[in-house]
Amino acid sequence: MEQIAFSYNEIHQTVAELAARITSSDYDPEVIVAIGTGGYIPARIIKTFLKLPIYTVGISLYLEDHTTLPSPRKIQWIDEVEQKLEGKRILLVDEVDDSRTTLEYCIRELLAHSPAALSVAVLHNKNKEKRGVIPAEVAHYWAGQELPDAWIKYPWDAVDIVQHDQAADAKAVPADA
Amino acid sequence: MEQIAFSYNEIHQTVAELAARITSSDYDPEVIVAIGTGGYIPARIIKTFLKLPIYTVGISLYLEDHTTLPSPRKIQWIDEVEQKLEGKRILLVDEVDDSRTTLEYCIRELLAHSPAALSVAVLHNKNKEKRGVIPAEVAHYWAGQELPDAWIKYPWDAVDIVQHDQAADAKAVPADA
Repeated sequence: MEQIAFSYNEIHQTVAELAARITSSDYDPEVIVAIGTGGYIPARIIKTFLKLPIYTVGISLYLEDHTTLPSPRKIQWIDEVEQKLEGKRILLVDEVDDSRTTLEYCIRELLAHSPAALSVAVLHNKNKEKRGVIPAEVAHYWAGQELPDAWIKYPWDAVDIVQHDQAADAKAVPADA
Repeated sequence: MEQIAFSYNEIHQTVAELAARITSSDYDPEVIVAIGTGGYIPARIIKTFLKLPIYTVGISLYLEDHTTLPSPRKIQWIDEVEQKLEGKRILLVDEVDDSRTTLEYCIRELLAHSPAALSVAVLHNKNKEKRGVIPAEVAHYWAGQELPDAWIKYPWDAVDIVQHDQAADAKAVPADA
């Protein structure tokens, strides 16, 4: 499978552009909900631009042996979520929209707690057949970048960040190529 | 006040070194607890090396107008924290040990839930007079780097990451200077 590596600064720029699109939209979020652990870093960066509090939810689609679970498992859910999100305009943040299963699961769980509105922002959307759907109640869906169905290598997963950046650089198409 | 800027890759390397020190110690953590929102990024990176689940707690010492609160306020606390952390060896992660107030607050709250053990890892410790203390029950305290009492500029707070990196580069002392 094709691999696409992104450096931290590329991720930061993608978040900055995403935040600009959100800010210039008609959606005015009040709280960020980060899907852990992939959404922690994008959510923390987007906070710099949107200046909103972050709540986190921990979700896993995999067991420790990398077996895929039939449905996502809650690692951590929001304490007093009902009170904190009820009537709020949520921005749900994750790193990637892959099969869409985790995203749909989180969206439905959050919608059950009566937010005023819910929109979704992901760094990357993989253009592939999806197993989950974005429910009609979702006000906006923003993806920082549309990508092919590749193996996305995030900088925070790098054991060797120098080697990782070489892979990220190799991907870049020169502007005057 | 002196400013010290760090690039993402410098942070990543500091976490890698911190993780190596933790791995080679006699402490064998089972869960990471990230103090939000500063600890989200260091915790997510350390997970790459330690391969442990992350729980997050959201704490704020400041109001939205930047007024300092007399004691930290819980933004989000761990759902079912008692069951999930009881009997576990915790690694508590934050980005910076500044006045030590937030850290002491989190440590005491977590210790109240009967973990088997608790150790602390921060990216940076500021060498200054501390208002909080590290309780004696804490097994280990690791700081990735010891810093003077400066204004630390983290990459995730950068509105302009290119400008930020110039400041981070300017700080670097050439190896053959």
